[in-house]
Amino acid sequence: MNMSFLQELFSNITQRDALQRKFGNKKRSYDHRDLITACEELLHSDGEAASIVLASRALDIYQSLGDEEKQAFFEVLAKQFSADPDRIDKAYRDYRNDRSNKHLAVLFDVAEPLRQELLRRLNLAQGATYELVKMRQDFLALMKGHKDFESINADFVHLFASWFNRGFLVLKRIDWTTPASILEKIIRYEAVHKIEGWDDLRRRLDNRDRRCFGFFHPAIGDEPLIFVEVALTKGIPNRIQPILADEQYDIDAPELADSAAFFGISNCQVGLRGISFGNFLIKQVVQELKQELPNLKNFVTLSPLPMFRSWLEKTYHPDSGLLTPEAQATLSLLDNPDWAANEELQNRLNEVVRPLAARYLLKEKNSENLPLNPVARFHLGNGAELHRINWLGDVSENGMKQSAGLMVNYLYVLENIERNNEKYTMNGEIVCSPSVRELGKLGRKLFQGELEK
Amino acid sequence: MNMSFLQELFSNITQRDALQRKFGNKKRSYDHRDLITACEELLHSDGEAASIVLASRALDIYQSLGDEEKQAFFEVLAKQFSADPDRIDKAYRDYRNDRSNKHLAVLFDVAEPLRQELLRRLNLAQGATYELVKMRQDFLALMKGHKDFESINADFVHLFASWFNRGFLVLKRIDWTTPASILEKIIRYEAVHKIEGWDDLRRRLDNRDRRCFGFFHPAIGDEPLIFVEVALTKGIPNRIQPILADEQYDIDAPELADSAAFFGISNCQVGLRGISFGNFLIKQVVQELKQELPNLKNFVTLSPLPMFRSWLEKTYHPDSGLLTPEAQATLSLLDNPDWAANEELQNRLNEVVRPLAARYLLKEKNSENLPLNPVARFHLGNGAELHRINWLGDVSENGMKQSAGLMVNYLYVLENIERNNEKYTMNGEIVCSPSVRELGKLGRKLFQGELEK
Amino acid sequence: MNMSFLQELFSNITQRDALQRKFGNKKRSYDHRDLITACEELLHSDGEAASIVLASRALDIYQSLGDEEKQAFFEVLAKQFSADPDRIDKAYRDYRNDRSNKHLAVLFDVAEPLRQELLRRLNLAQGATYELVKMRQDFLALMKGHKDFESINADFVHLFASWFNRGFLVLKRIDWTTPASILEKIIRYEAVHKIEGWDDLRRRLDNRDRRCFGFFHPAIGDEPLIFVEVALTKGIPNRIQPILADEQYDIDAPELADSAAFFGISNCQVGLRGISFGNFLIKQVVQELKQELPNLKNFVTLSPLPMFRSWLEKTYHPDSGLLTPEAQATLSLLDNPDWAANEELQNRLNEVVRPLAARYLLKEKNSENLPLNPVARFHLGNGAELHRINWLGDVSENGMKQSAGLMVNYLYVLENIERNNEKYTMNGEIVCSPSVRELGKLGRKLFQGELEK
Amino acid sequence: MNMSFLQELFSNITQRDALQRKFGNKKRSYDHRDLITACEELLHSDGEAASIVLASRALDIYQSLGDEEKQAFFEVLAKQFSADPDRIDKAYRDYRNDRSNKHLAVLFDVAEPLRQELLRRLNLAQGATYELVKMRQDFLALMKGHKDFESINADFVHLFASWFNRGFLVLKRIDWTTPASILEKIIRYEAVHKIEGWDDLRRRLDNRDRRCFGFFHPAIGDEPLIFVEVALTKGIPNRIQPILADEQYDIDAPELADSAAFFGISNCQVGLRGISFGNFLIKQVVQELKQELPNLKNFVTLSPLPMFRSWLEKTYHPDSGLLTPEAQATLSLLDNPDWAANEELQNRLNEVVRPLAARYLLKEKNSENLPLNPVARFHLGNGAELHRINWLGDVSENGMKQSAGLMVNYLYVLENIERNNEKYTMNGEIVCSPSVRELGKLGRKLFQGELEK
Repeated sequence: MNMSFLQELFSNITQRDALQRKFGNKKRSYDHRDLITACEELLHSDGEAASIVLASRALDIYQSLGDEEKQAFFEVLAKQFSADPDRIDKAYRDYRNDRSNKHLAVLFDVAEPLRQELLRRLNLAQGATYELVKMRQDFLALMKGHKDFESINADFVHLFASWFNRGFLVLKRIDWTTPASILEKIIRYEAVHKIEGWDDLRRRLDNRDRRCFGFFHPAIGDEPLIFVEVALTKGIPNRIQPILADEQYDIDAPELADSAAFFGISNCQVGLRGISFGNFLIKQVVQELKQELPNLKNFVTLSPLPMFRSWLEKTYHPDSGLLTPEAQATLSLLDNPDWAANEELQNRLNEVVRPLAARYLLKEKNSENLPLNPVARFHLGNGAELHRINWLGDVSENGMKQSAGLMVNYLYVLENIERNNEKYTMNGEIVCSPSVRELGKLGRKLFQGELEK
Repeated sequence: MNMSFLQELFSNITQRDALQRKFGNKKRSYDHRDLITACEELLHSDGEAASIVLASRALDIYQSLGDEEKQAFFEVLAKQFSADPDRIDKAYRDYRNDRSNKHLAVLFDVAEPLRQELLRRLNLAQGATYELVKMRQDFLALMKGHKDFESINADFVHLFASWFNRGFLVLKRIDWTTPASILEKIIRYEAVHKIEGWDDLRRRLDNRDRRCFGFFHPAIGDEPLIFVEVALTKGIPNRIQPILADEQYDIDAPELADSAAFFGISNCQVGLRGISFGNFLIKQVVQELKQELPNLKNFVTLSPLPMFRSWLEKTYHPDSGLLTPEAQATLSLLDNPDWAANEELQNRLNEVVRPLAARYLLKEKNSENLPLNPVARFHLGNGAELHRINWLGDVSENGMKQSAGLMVNYLYVLENIERNNEKYTMNGEIVCSPSVRELGKLGRKLFQGELEK
Repeated sequence: MNMSFLQELFSNITQRDALQRKFGNKKRSYDHRDLITACEELLHSDGEAASIVLASRALDIYQSLGDEEKQAFFEVLAKQFSADPDRIDKAYRDYRNDRSNKHLAVLFDVAEPLRQELLRRLNLAQGATYELVKMRQDFLALMKGHKDFESINADFVHLFASWFNRGFLVLKRIDWTTPASILEKIIRYEAVHKIEGWDDLRRRLDNRDRRCFGFFHPAIGDEPLIFVEVALTKGIPNRIQPILADEQYDIDAPELADSAAFFGISNCQVGLRGISFGNFLIKQVVQELKQELPNLKNFVTLSPLPMFRSWLEKTYHPDSGLLTPEAQATLSLLDNPDWAANEELQNRLNEVVRPLAARYLLKEKNSENLPLNPVARFHLGNGAELHRINWLGDVSENGMKQSAGLMVNYLYVLENIERNNEKYTMNGEIVCSPSVRELGKLGRKLFQGELEK
Repeated sequence: MNMSFLQELFSNITQRDALQRKFGNKKRSYDHRDLITACEELLHSDGEAASIVLASRALDIYQSLGDEEKQAFFEVLAKQFSADPDRIDKAYRDYRNDRSNKHLAVLFDVAEPLRQELLRRLNLAQGATYELVKMRQDFLALMKGHKDFESINADFVHLFASWFNRGFLVLKRIDWTTPASILEKIIRYEAVHKIEGWDDLRRRLDNRDRRCFGFFHPAIGDEPLIFVEVALTKGIPNRIQPILADEQYDIDAPELADSAAFFGISNCQVGLRGISFGNFLIKQVVQELKQELPNLKNFVTLSPLPMFRSWLEKTYHPDSGLLTPEAQATLSLLDNPDWAANEELQNRLNEVVRPLAARYLLKEKNSENLPLNPVARFHLGNGAELHRINWLGDVSENGMKQSAGLMVNYLYVLENIERNNEKYTMNGEIVCSPSVRELGKLGRKLFQGELEK
């Protein structure tokens, strides 16, 4: 297939933005009733002749509204742009009489909320896809406390899951030659380890020992959906600070690395919450890296352990009486803000905290019998293995507060991903390295009395 | 927005095809049960870890099947990949008790045939979108006589309408610098006036007095969805033969044209039947042309009148007694295969056939009170005006047989499109030029007795 | 012509850089004799089989040398890579006997210094063109005091003038979607009004009221050769500070501008000194802007008046006795560092300094009878008109020190460029606006005694 | 480096062509004197302001001239656009007095024919580079018999060698996704084995077992300079007909090939005659193929043996008495037009013709002691090895007539290229396979009396 032809295709998408209905919302002030009227006109149009113009107009009006009017609009959406009960009743009756595909199709059709057709039609306008994503972002912020809004949310999710199907996403390397307009979004959207500005970004994108990839969608142009940052290292890294620091390089050519460490995955579009890309991203990036750098042997994350410390404090509260007095006393050293700087304290804590972290990851489950820790849930659910728990892996303020300074390596072994995933989803089994397992066992000694597990 | 960045995005899409699961279907022979098993595995996967591989495998198996096995597969699809009646019953009960959005959402959810989720998951594989379009093409061929297949068709249409939403399509000019791999498809897909080979194609794409545009979809790469051919002329053309002939040029620079004549619109993907693009295409092409060539004043079609002659013969059969004896006698001259070459016959026929054609276009309606002629229905529905009926507009064998040699100009006046469309959809009113109206009136004299209309 | 095909062509150029002989110069340390040997091998190769490798090796060695060794290399170049006196003598004798083209061609051929062939062969290596530009940059720094180096310089200039012929340059718009790797060079190379960082750059590239264009050369990739910054304004601007400030916008859409003000032209490659692009750049940018923004009426510069103040002080030194005592007294107010802030001083100075500036621009010539001021020489030589001298146009420290705060508008009227240029080159005539002429006349009153001009 | 940025650069080049001075030459008819005047104006312009317009005008006039007027123009060029004898005399005197670089530089400068500056200035116009190449094409056709034109030719060569330096060329794969506008040039320019039309071309570009690469120059857009056709095969092919035939494929995926056979190299631009690219092309293509298809082991040509048969007939004319009577009798069988179809004749001829061909290639030299056969000279000069002489390698009419049906494989072994080239250039040594050497020895027996060689 000819790449360049395809590439040209996309001039349009870009030109559309150039046209942007810039003066659209200046003419007069609108309220939510104007928007409802515009939406009704759009739905009553034959879907063809005038639809693009009407869709464009409705989006213009929407953009001009303040939060209150937007909320009012969503309220009307929830109430009036639903489905026709009479038609549903009739379709169901027919279906009950004859449970044929034909009657099912009708039932499905009439049960579809009008909102979905509305969203599809709004999408006819130039640049509309991104505006609908932003509309959902507004919506999520306004949704709290509105039980009825759940259904609107379901409509968004249903359509976005279809539109942002993995088959339509495009993986793109991001580096220092990427347009500044995209790079500034990388700075803004980085959610895990803050990027401090352009110089910091430049270090993060240095070709010698870094890689960054993102998913993009043809119709929303230069807006990344999600991106991942990778450090190329010799050996599996156990600390984040050297990676974030603008300091000496471990290696000065990517070919010298044997490990690729994923140290940050950031979702960029609040409006796409619930549409998951991260798992596809990691696996595809592993393949890209394998192809570019055949020397790479380990594909691993360097991940935080969010909520670990608060869980620790709650679970092993002195009143709980779970730990041995010694272990309990050691644990309380965490309250000393300078423990990490004091070698003795540090060593003592190491012997308690890491084993407890191993147990936390291996044993603590949520109501669905999946790991309590969301990051663990994500990577283990993707088929990764729990590889190592790193002491003093993240000594930033945030790292100390959230993860008691720990960082975790999850290992992606392509050949094992499917099997791991199967074990995990079937039996809730967590594949982990012997050292982590050992660490978990070590934890037993910290407890008072017998431990069944 | 940065065009080149966007353009790079699409290297992926193309590379994916390069990987094409080429050897996939050689290993052993499969039957439809293997495919069903593969589909079930895909549906039971968690949708993430292994889904891409499973989707890919299912599509490989599908491709390796012969028609009979494909049909058997669709039969199982129709029966078993439907929805769960018990869940529907329960959801409906809940909805009847409380007609809330929440219950509606559940009902909609459980009424969705499992097939739709299956298609969405199949789409995870590389290059799957196009393969699903081809799957529907197979399906449409196998569908005849299978009542139950209607529902599968509805599932395809529901998803494709969402995936091929106008907002995701890209308009692309096609010319002699377009990759040969796409141009050969233009030759193959041209449905209105056959392209006789590369030399003929070259004439059709000559920048001096021709334009060609197509819609493409990012995920199906270099496969055009639909394209339109345009001749740039001085004055509105009334005959197709000079345009198709490889002869002298009316103008030798596009700036000299005052008219753009759309003389062929070809849908390329049978698998997308029912997903309409043509109207969007024409309007966007009008805008592109306006911008490139500000001298253009008329945007017009040069369209056939398919089925006119068979309608003529059936309606004004000598037995019908509708026409005056004279008119009837003249009409019978059409049976003379050489009438077009005989000036006298030709002139006599002109006085009968053109008026009848005007009446045919203006008065003959289908059951929905829309014009009987499908081409007229398409353009008038788009907001075009019936501008002129051209005598001896297409003297090819096909043109004579289908359209009695007539060609019709439909005029697109951008400012009037919405108003025309409104008149048409609201009141069934056909906007036409005075000359066509006059022609229609002239027709009255051909009838026996009084004519109320 | 198909743009995308062309675009693909250039993947090579880029890939070459990727290969960059990265480890080449690490192996051992070289001196200039190694380089001379490498150059000789390159010249003795048949120019085909091994040449690329040899060229690459020579450039590697060159890059690894320190300044002293580079200088030693250039010294050998000057001495030994010249031409063969005997062959020149013979060729000249033949030419004197028969002044035919044939003998001239031989003479030209043998008089070409070997260095030129060496440079052409070095250019065979990947990415060599840019490395040769950087070699000349080194060379220019080392050239001072070396009379013999003039000739090497002439060789560089001869070849570069051919390689960087206008016909090979490409104009490219630079904006916020340009790759960061290029933008950081814009920040670095801006020579007229310093860019303070990425935020400042972003303001300078804001599509609403700014444009920036540069010339690039296919073989030296993403290195700009020269670029120009343009402000889109209502009316011809008279002050630079509002343009440089990150403040309110005059206009919020480019269509609202009637003027395009060129406020900075920066040459980027020291190694291309003496190869002039600026004049071509301005004219092509004027055409680009005209096409994009038909509302633009004025194409004008906002230029400094470098060296004006030092000229003023030298020419009208109190001892010179040229000015009237009053004028002389006023002029001395310039020594007051705060004069610009003092309205009275400012007004008094205005009446003396601006008229003297007008005379400076109109009357003061260099030895070739061209304006003394280099900026004036550049723009007037390009066919621009001297339009306005702006009081307090640049109140920055540098602006006050160099230009006494003045800024000058030179006006480019496309229709007049050729005529102006002819007047200027033929008769040394400077086309200027009536107001500047008036200002010049006004200046007469400042002088003691009669003034003939 | 950012590929896409670079790619965008070239929109300009393309747009320039779009502007093409289309109506330029219609206004009135010109003769060579108008052109001379235009050229003089261009040379007298200051090279900046008006030069682009003047260059453009001169090229327009040139294009409008007929052959006679072009010839008259070149005659004036030869006479009047030479160099100034007085300045040369003075520069030489200075140089003789002091053979410094400075005086050499002046001599070189004044000895440069004015034509070279004229060509550089003509190149300022849009699209001029290609027009100058075509101008030289005209010129070469008109040159015969004009001794004085040699010098003009030298000027073209001098400039083109600099402009088309390998460092500025871009290698590009050509396949079925290449724009039709380029592919039609491939059909037209193929010089070795005629391409019979689009279907034939398609076979030649089939990705499964074919590759095609060309060199392009950024400033002459989509015009290939030279291209090479490659067949991917199992084993080194010995016959061209199966490769040219549209028949069964040896392999159905490129990965299955172990050999890449270069079976056609075609120069496209007559106007670039004497500027050699072929050697660079072959070596770069070998590298590209190695990278894409690591399984490839042999890089080899399948080359004709042009002029062999005429050499054979002349050298071994019956009157020469060189061959044994038996050999001579066998050789005369070549006159039988159907010998190839007759197994007996064929076998007998094989025993005479192949050994003589081996001797022809190994022993027959031109005046510079290089192989008489131009194809051998080219490949052996590039460092290839004489690998095999194939009986009935090309049984086309042309192949029989020129090469007595023989085809030759020259083998490119990257590691040996430099060494082979050195042997060849230093000692005239031809590296060949044992089998060819054996064949050469076998030849001895065909001769009457003793043979020293």
